[in-house]
Amino acid sequence: MPLEIPEVVIDRLPMYYRLLTTLQLRGVSVVSSQELGDALNVTPAQIRKDLSYFGRFGKQGRGYSVQRLTEELRTILGLDQRWRMVLVGVGRLGTAIASYRGFEPQGFDIVGVYDVNPEAVGTELNGELVVRNVADLAHDLEAEQVDIGIVAVPANEAQAVIDVLVAAGIGAILNYAPTGAQVPAGVEVRQIDPVLSLQGMTYHLRRRSG
Amino acid sequence: MPLEIPEVVIDRLPMYYRLLTTLQLRGVSVVSSQELGDALNVTPAQIRKDLSYFGRFGKQGRGYSVQRLTEELRTILGLDQRWRMVLVGVGRLGTAIASYRGFEPQGFDIVGVYDVNPEAVGTELNGELVVRNVADLAHDLEAEQVDIGIVAVPANEAQAVIDVLVAAGIGAILNYAPTGAQVPAGVEVRQIDPVLSLQGMTYHLRRRSG
Repeated sequence: MPLEIPEVVIDRLPMYYRLLTTLQLRGVSVVSSQELGDALNVTPAQIRKDLSYFGRFGKQGRGYSVQRLTEELRTILGLDQRWRMVLVGVGRLGTAIASYRGFEPQGFDIVGVYDVNPEAVGTELNGELVVRNVADLAHDLEAEQVDIGIVAVPANEAQAVIDVLVAAGIGAILNYAPTGAQVPAGVEVRQIDPVLSLQGMTYHLRRRSG
Repeated sequence: MPLEIPEVVIDRLPMYYRLLTTLQLRGVSVVSSQELGDALNVTPAQIRKDLSYFGRFGKQGRGYSVQRLTEELRTILGLDQRWRMVLVGVGRLGTAIASYRGFEPQGFDIVGVYDVNPEAVGTELNGELVVRNVADLAHDLEAEQVDIGIVAVPANEAQAVIDVLVAAGIGAILNYAPTGAQVPAGVEVRQIDPVLSLQGMTYHLRRRSG
């Protein structure tokens, strides 16, 4: 495997993986780059180029084995294990995140929830986890194995929370706060920010109407 | 302006814009690519290259005028006007989206909300908009000017909703459903899917521990 795979390629792999698992459920055993491309709105050439970073999965003109490609991607993406996450912030957004049913089937478990609000601390969130005080976050992370931090606090509180997570050795942060995160090299951050996504689209809308 | 700006560059522009508006609020008038890069965790060279697609904003060794660059990006991204959005799906996620206070200050207005659930239709969402029947969506869009559709329905209902939005001429879709969207060329889609973001990070976590 080459050492430097472009980040844009890595970010597309989960889409390939999800499509392939869907095909597998439908009983499809072989798929072409054309079919993958059609389903994902990208060109077959892009598919072939992306997957070529990870070895030779397909045979020329024969298509890809759905099962083999799914398994390879599962390993490459680290989806053959479970990942432990803490959620910080249980306001309306955090509550919606905690109740999202899409994490667990994919191997992502929220094992701790935190908030700064004394009225929330000690209550049960969605009848499952007891909300802990964010002041205990650093201490708790010393004792508990956690892989990923989810940040769902207001923008002006986000960096302080992220600093605690990073100091505790958390290597991956899913940031829902509408603010960029400062992290040292080697810490992964993905921002979930609908406004940034909208603004990337209005660029195109403007150009089309202009 | 060159015709083909890479999509990855366009997707970074909203981050630049947000940072610049923050700097402007702080009274900063000139910023270097080094400072921009430090704040965004990218290299100064990347900043210079990205911004060079849009003309020569900065002077060698002098930095960028915050005000001028902010204004240029606002125009390029189409943020000097308001954008009208409909939201389809008012379950827990849709309700959280509708109550998000970050859209309106950035020029994005939710002007209609829809659901398929008869118990939700006719109720007021967050005391603001009355939830309409998704069966009326196509008809309503003939009469109302709408730019963007937000899809917050379950995965198996998403494509049908997206088809209605596209047929009505909506050119941009923000898709919260955990499924890829099939759209014709010329329609923009951005997916908000935390699992895809997590899976892009576990790739790195796995490689680091492996």
